[in-house]
Amino acid sequence: MPVNLTPPDPASLLPVAGVLLGIASAGIKKPGRRDITLIELAAGSRVAGVFTQNRFCAAPVTLCRQHLTQGTIRALVINTGNANAGTGEEGLRRARQTCEVVAGIMGCATEQVLPFSTGVILEPLPVDKILPALPAAYADLAPNHWSEAAHAIMTTDIVAKGASRQAQVSGKTVTVTGIAKGSGMIHPNMATMLGFVATDAAIAASLMPQLVKDVADVSFNCVTVDGDTSTNDSFILIATGQAGNAEIGDAASADYAALKATLSEVAIELAQAMARDGEGATKFITVQIEGGRDHDECKQIAYAIARSPLVKTAFFASDPNLGRILAAIGYAGVSDLDVNTLQVYLGGVLVAEKGGRAASYTEAQGAAVMQETDITVRVVLNRGKVNATVWTCDFSYDYVKINAEYRT
Amino acid sequence: MPVNLTPPDPASLLPVAGVLLGIASAGIKKPGRRDITLIELAAGSRVAGVFTQNRFCAAPVTLCRQHLTQGTIRALVINTGNANAGTGEEGLRRARQTCEVVAGIMGCATEQVLPFSTGVILEPLPVDKILPALPAAYADLAPNHWSEAAHAIMTTDIVAKGASRQAQVSGKTVTVTGIAKGSGMIHPNMATMLGFVATDAAIAASLMPQLVKDVADVSFNCVTVDGDTSTNDSFILIATGQAGNAEIGDAASADYAALKATLSEVAIELAQAMARDGEGATKFITVQIEGGRDHDECKQIAYAIARSPLVKTAFFASDPNLGRILAAIGYAGVSDLDVNTLQVYLGGVLVAEKGGRAASYTEAQGAAVMQETDITVRVVLNRGKVNATVWTCDFSYDYVKINAEYRT
Repeated sequence: MPVNLTPPDPASLLPVAGVLLGIASAGIKKPGRRDITLIELAAGSRVAGVFTQNRFCAAPVTLCRQHLTQGTIRALVINTGNANAGTGEEGLRRARQTCEVVAGIMGCATEQVLPFSTGVILEPLPVDKILPALPAAYADLAPNHWSEAAHAIMTTDIVAKGASRQAQVSGKTVTVTGIAKGSGMIHPNMATMLGFVATDAAIAASLMPQLVKDVADVSFNCVTVDGDTSTNDSFILIATGQAGNAEIGDAASADYAALKATLSEVAIELAQAMARDGEGATKFITVQIEGGRDHDECKQIAYAIARSPLVKTAFFASDPNLGRILAAIGYAGVSDLDVNTLQVYLGGVLVAEKGGRAASYTEAQGAAVMQETDITVRVVLNRGKVNATVWTCDFSYDYVKINAEYRT
Repeated sequence: MPVNLTPPDPASLLPVAGVLLGIASAGIKKPGRRDITLIELAAGSRVAGVFTQNRFCAAPVTLCRQHLTQGTIRALVINTGNANAGTGEEGLRRARQTCEVVAGIMGCATEQVLPFSTGVILEPLPVDKILPALPAAYADLAPNHWSEAAHAIMTTDIVAKGASRQAQVSGKTVTVTGIAKGSGMIHPNMATMLGFVATDAAIAASLMPQLVKDVADVSFNCVTVDGDTSTNDSFILIATGQAGNAEIGDAASADYAALKATLSEVAIELAQAMARDGEGATKFITVQIEGGRDHDECKQIAYAIARSPLVKTAFFASDPNLGRILAAIGYAGVSDLDVNTLQVYLGGVLVAEKGGRAASYTEAQGAAVMQETDITVRVVLNRGKVNATVWTCDFSYDYVKINAEYRT
């Protein structure tokens, strides 16, 4: 069950000038399922992306990387039901074919189309079903179809994920709207995390690669459900430049900071929604590391806690099992960590310090925090000034059930 | 349920000249439970150990490290029911006190005693119960109490773990006997893996540190159940020197190789027993990586597969879900890995090559392998000459049950 998560009100997902979305049904896995999403971008839009580091990356990821270096992007095409991963040369050919057909309908070049796939791995992409559905998706293009798109890109997500914000940039109102899918860093045979965030702000093309990375680092790169990294993970940032603001050309400017903050808010809401909708989740866990020497060591410790099956099953059991958290901190791989000078908090309660349980701590305090559905674990390292946060969920019977029964 | 694992026949655990074992009951967690093991070593015995890398290491681990540098070891004292971990300065004091009392009974120095604890973390070591039980353990000392000791060091292990072998070293028969405990790399609140392997072979003290590391690297360092590393992991190698062989003084000699091979056999049997007795295990999985450039990359890929919750739940479901294995190989972190030139085998069946499913593969072949309880995943990297193996088990409802319900 998703933890404190409801689908976005369709009216709350604001149109972004220069972005049109169209949905269609190709019947890839189920007849009638709306499984194709087409996104058309106005001429002059700037697009940048970050992708999975998995060496078994999917064919559409390979193609996205190529097309982003070759041209200005005019369209995105997304299918669910098939990941087009582990499909070799033939997979690349079929992904390119999809782009070609979109380009033909829209009157642009094949390299101006980015393809995305999510679904079963190791199965050939059913272009016989996808290609005929593309004209219907094109005919459906409209500025207010964000909610429909959020639903159409879901796989085993229980709740659709979308968010909008507005901000002032050089005296103009800019809009940011994003949608995402994913409920495990990798799903059972599923390509997991896709995120698309668009803004009508005008920003120099040269700043886009850094901006998408900055936003990903504080949002999608802070989520883990099971520690597995998908073959298809993609996060795309779109800036159509139609808000009328003076083009942002300096990464040190206040405008850049304002836009980045607003983009990050949307991306963080989407990223947290993935952990809240994590497979079998009953609790949403924030792991916050403070006072580290550098970002890497903070992330290492945060992930050690957030990935530990022992910690996650303890949260599922509402058991304030501090030993498991301490052990995870200890094996995180920070070799010169002094465990005698750090503090661990569960919610607002100091639970451990000086290498052991805090003298003031009582089991009743820990048990009370564990009853909550949104819980924060805070580790104060006291060795530097850097912080990092990771979001995750607990580990329940249903995780095993979902993943053991997915194909069988 | 342990996978193809039965306790050793007590008669099969051969005495090792120079080693006496005594058991007693201190009633640490349960009245009457035999929870104290004392091991007395003849004068002249050589001892070396390897220990957890966890920064939250337990007090007895800290003391073991100190004592091994200070003196010749004459005794080991092991308690279950309490890990003496996360106990700060007071924990060290109590561990030292235990050594002092043993030293007093045996007439040796405190630094000649190694302490070991396994059980609940964050609770004070109940020396009020342990110290009075030590004379009874001393009175029980006998050369043929290996099986009793194997049982006395168990925590949530279902099956006791012990093994013996004999070998010829420079014309003399040497005996190797070992016991171990552990059924998760870390247990729920439990300090996990303890291994004690003794031989009567004579070997130079200077070779012991390398030997214990070599043996650990091919045995205990190849097991993972849940990827968590305990605060108390310890593996101790004992050589009493009473077999009458000419002392082994050269690590390049045939005698050294013969002894190392025999020690490794015993340690491998014990290490595999841990995975077979893994929490909630229904299958024993061997992950074998071949043709890597170096040991690190082989281990990285092996552990990525062996630790993946998605791979492990697929084995539980007897589902030949190849996509999950490929994804784990891909995200293992070997950044220049070419996925198009590796092969993956399930049992004897070629399942993946050229970046995708093998053309010859059928789902029925994979399903047949998955019906077995002992399964090997083989990945042939084709980029070097190095191999590595990791043993693990699958991931079942019972893993969540055991770990969610342990304290509550």
